[in-house]
Amino acid sequence: MAEQEEQPREACLLIIGNEILSGRTQDANLAYIGRRLAELGVPLLEVRVVPDREAMIISALNELRARYAYVFTTGGIGPTHDDITAACVAKAFGVALIENPKARAILEAHYQPGQLNEARLRMARTPEGAELIENPISRAPGFRIGNVFVMAGIPSVMQAMFENVAPNLKGGPPVISRTVVCPLPEGTIAKALGALQSQHPEIEIGSYPAYRDGRFLTSLVLRGTDSASIERAAEELMTLIRALGAEPSLETPA
Amino acid sequence: MAEQEEQPREACLLIIGNEILSGRTQDANLAYIGRRLAELGVPLLEVRVVPDREAMIISALNELRARYAYVFTTGGIGPTHDDITAACVAKAFGVALIENPKARAILEAHYQPGQLNEARLRMARTPEGAELIENPISRAPGFRIGNVFVMAGIPSVMQAMFENVAPNLKGGPPVISRTVVCPLPEGTIAKALGALQSQHPEIEIGSYPAYRDGRFLTSLVLRGTDSASIERAAEELMTLIRALGAEPSLETPA
Repeated sequence: MAEQEEQPREACLLIIGNEILSGRTQDANLAYIGRRLAELGVPLLEVRVVPDREAMIISALNELRARYAYVFTTGGIGPTHDDITAACVAKAFGVALIENPKARAILEAHYQPGQLNEARLRMARTPEGAELIENPISRAPGFRIGNVFVMAGIPSVMQAMFENVAPNLKGGPPVISRTVVCPLPEGTIAKALGALQSQHPEIEIGSYPAYRDGRFLTSLVLRGTDSASIERAAEELMTLIRALGAEPSLETPA
Repeated sequence: MAEQEEQPREACLLIIGNEILSGRTQDANLAYIGRRLAELGVPLLEVRVVPDREAMIISALNELRARYAYVFTTGGIGPTHDDITAACVAKAFGVALIENPKARAILEAHYQPGQLNEARLRMARTPEGAELIENPISRAPGFRIGNVFVMAGIPSVMQAMFENVAPNLKGGPPVISRTVVCPLPEGTIAKALGALQSQHPEIEIGSYPAYRDGRFLTSLVLRGTDSASIERAAEELMTLIRALGAEPSLETPA
């Protein structure tokens, strides 16, 4: 992946599946991948969700793999007729969809004699030239081709696959964050917060309102790569909140 | 919106917010909007998540509003510096961002004297020509301009705004679904399922594996607009499962 050296190290996620768009299934992969990529210093900059439609998957893949250093996909790599991700990735890259001998060997070792039917063998198909991503949970592998990482949709399987590729991602400094909880509504702190953001362009200050026990409060999230700078801004922010007559609290990092 | 008569009645959702991409906040709006749009006969065909960055929001908005009959956005309409959605929508449409007199009147009626500060007045800004979407929860309104519906990110507020605009959406027949739970793994049923899908091109059959109590099982979801056709396919599917020696069950619709 030498050609990626000059690209910004940013990632996107392509979630593939009708069940997410119909509201039947609540996606759980975005939050996991977003959090882990931030820790790895590869910010997740965009997510798209598309249905199991070949043209939409191919078009999204080609647009995103040209734009981002890393593209992760979830969903559509099982044995049924609606699992079309591998075929779409092959078409997007303009390569053949082959029965991958290593993937077939993994499935042969896993299934009882007679169980590795035609449908399950679909899970051995990858674009030509792809490298497998191991699946310690249910064995059928994901794969990487170019800067595209193709993973399962089931969260436990996706997470195991992600952690298998994580050590190979080339990230910048990890993004760290500090959350100051302000027992005042957003509108009360907004002006001082905007001024603080202007004074600290090196960090990103996010303001997230919540409604708890009948009161509005605001979680203020400071994110950046320099911990000293974040601690300084957090101190200044707590001073600002105290000046407005309220007592802030620091949220314990998870 | 007469010009939309000739467009397909499909929708997309643009989720705006760093907190979703960083994994800090689990999105809860996609599933709600996807389910409700299916009921309204306006399938949700694509979702994008972008950060609080002007260029990315504007570019996504312009691409999506040209492609879909309806574009819904969530997030970024509060009083703080990182709430830039209204300004971006105005730029995308090439119109001025104004202080909307109706929105200002709503805020003036809601806040105690002295509380409607400069930051909160930001929530009265809309693109010129926008119509307000009422917010019965915390009052600050969303708005519609052209085929773009701009809503809050807080789920309770977003849902109230969505239900205010839902009666005005022009949908096709509602998408109905039936779920057959098959106590066999996907790979066992896959072949018969593919054949059934080929015989019923008018419905969409999705296969979703799950792992419960140490066993793989498969939820088979039949979706379409003709209930007789769906019931017929569900019966055939249950016959196929019984032929494989297992007893299917119908999931009670929610």
